[in-house]
Amino acid sequence: MLRVGINGYGTIGKRVADAVDAQPDMEVAGVAKTRPNFEAKQARERGFDLYAAIEDRADQFGEAGVETAGLVDDLVAESDVVVDATPSGIGAQNRALYEEHDTPAIYQGGEDADVADVSFNARSNYAEAEGADHVRVVSCNTTGLSRLLAPLQEEYGVEKVRTTLVRRGGDPGQTGRGPINDILPDPISIPSHHGPDVNTIFPDLDIDTLGLKVPATLMHMHSVNVTLESEPDADEVRDVLAGQSRIMVLDKDLGIKGTGPLKEYAKDMGRPRGDLWENCLWGESVTTVGRDFYCFQAIHQESDVVPENVDAVRAITGEMDAEESVATTNDALGL
Amino acid sequence: MLRVGINGYGTIGKRVADAVDAQPDMEVAGVAKTRPNFEAKQARERGFDLYAAIEDRADQFGEAGVETAGLVDDLVAESDVVVDATPSGIGAQNRALYEEHDTPAIYQGGEDADVADVSFNARSNYAEAEGADHVRVVSCNTTGLSRLLAPLQEEYGVEKVRTTLVRRGGDPGQTGRGPINDILPDPISIPSHHGPDVNTIFPDLDIDTLGLKVPATLMHMHSVNVTLESEPDADEVRDVLAGQSRIMVLDKDLGIKGTGPLKEYAKDMGRPRGDLWENCLWGESVTTVGRDFYCFQAIHQESDVVPENVDAVRAITGEMDAEESVATTNDALGL
Repeated sequence: MLRVGINGYGTIGKRVADAVDAQPDMEVAGVAKTRPNFEAKQARERGFDLYAAIEDRADQFGEAGVETAGLVDDLVAESDVVVDATPSGIGAQNRALYEEHDTPAIYQGGEDADVADVSFNARSNYAEAEGADHVRVVSCNTTGLSRLLAPLQEEYGVEKVRTTLVRRGGDPGQTGRGPINDILPDPISIPSHHGPDVNTIFPDLDIDTLGLKVPATLMHMHSVNVTLESEPDADEVRDVLAGQSRIMVLDKDLGIKGTGPLKEYAKDMGRPRGDLWENCLWGESVTTVGRDFYCFQAIHQESDVVPENVDAVRAITGEMDAEESVATTNDALGL
Repeated sequence: MLRVGINGYGTIGKRVADAVDAQPDMEVAGVAKTRPNFEAKQARERGFDLYAAIEDRADQFGEAGVETAGLVDDLVAESDVVVDATPSGIGAQNRALYEEHDTPAIYQGGEDADVADVSFNARSNYAEAEGADHVRVVSCNTTGLSRLLAPLQEEYGVEKVRTTLVRRGGDPGQTGRGPINDILPDPISIPSHHGPDVNTIFPDLDIDTLGLKVPATLMHMHSVNVTLESEPDADEVRDVLAGQSRIMVLDKDLGIKGTGPLKEYAKDMGRPRGDLWENCLWGESVTTVGRDFYCFQAIHQESDVVPENVDAVRAITGEMDAEESVATTNDALGL
């Protein structure tokens, strides 16, 4: 069994812990947290060993009646792989800790690409992470784009990608974020960082991205244009996309008009926390005009990178190839 | 003096009435309204003659203490031109009334293009409306796109337009509209109606548009891509756009990040009702990548067609050419 430590137990970390716990070949070595908040308490409820991420604050856990098993150093020492799910920028600061213990580490997409030897998306470049000590799972939006672009690239060739990302202002739990009643170009300058980030996965791809932020919390929305190198009809492309294990092509009959009903659908399916690990792509929106492909897809910012983190653990160890790992992850999650 | 009747005194009609009233060569013959609501009362406050739009409901005005000058038939009979600013679909029903009185009529973009002999944008095809009996001013979004595309077409040639329109869910006064906390592909199918509508102004243009609806009320936002036929640098294109009288290029120094501060700016400028008649285009967003042009522009759905309606009145009568009319309209409005 691979022992996986999770440093950071917030939006991503807690989901990765549950996903690791569900795998047949992995176990959670423990989770590290800076404060004894509701998530720390829930970690203990789930039976995960809890480690204090900041030595100076370790006492707070005992005072709050939350049992810890030690400090984050101990967790890193006894893990085969660590998933760093700390806030943007903290992962880079933690790199020295992982190096000290010679523990391979997986970082999140909020870190700069140079934190790691390789940026990772299971569908696109799984094998590149084999044997790497530092791997970065790209952000939710870059993951969503990579999953879509990999099959289009393979089947039809991609001449150019132009995509507008209409981003949620904050997650449902981030009460301090905005905007309220506004539509913000974000950033105002073009391209947004997403295009260059996709290039960490597809180095030669010609891609321009534009970002906006709106008063919504549930999911991101991508308005996608890809100029292909050939001229498939829309039905054919829709079938290719529906055949991808991490793209859910939404039938018109479902009557799902936006991200609200999508999340409701996830909850009705019994998904933990109402998560949508797949790209959610409207079948009706798949359109071709000559060599131009268009579609809308929604991306669940809190969860779509979760299965990618699980696969990254296996990619590093070389235990399974991409196909086997993705199938194992999906099967364990019920995806 | 051209006597202009305005049938429909809601969001667009009341603004057109004020704009007509401000012109040196026009006067408001009167305005027609279905109900004696707050807008009807304000019309009287402003000194406009008020006509009942529905005979069966004419008594309601007297009962509410709002004086009328007659029925809409009377208004049409004594107007040189009528601007129909009734809700979508009602304009087409009213066409017979205007024909009966042989009064030229201007319709709004909510009507199907075939309601009129010509679809109109002052910057793009002013002269086509000369002598027409029925002219349709295209919708707010189509107006915004036409104003942007006309100079790009003239200066650089346009190979293809791909634009995502992130639309406000409803106007500030439309309390019954949504969405709340959602991002809706709207329509889910591609293209949205905007591309074909732009083709009523530029018949040969290759354009694909995608529509979304978000929880905001202030303005629409366009994420624009235009593949040009040449390769200008961004500064040059920015200068061309800044030279257009109905495009406001926003300097970075203004510190305007979204539609909220934009509307605040309009109010600080003393604009009536905080209106923004121009396309509001972020200078910082003007980008060229090879032959690909990108930008963000915000469109004030309640007011950008107002100067176009004024120009359409003159275009029909042939009283002025495009340049003189646009200059006169802008000058009278303080634009």
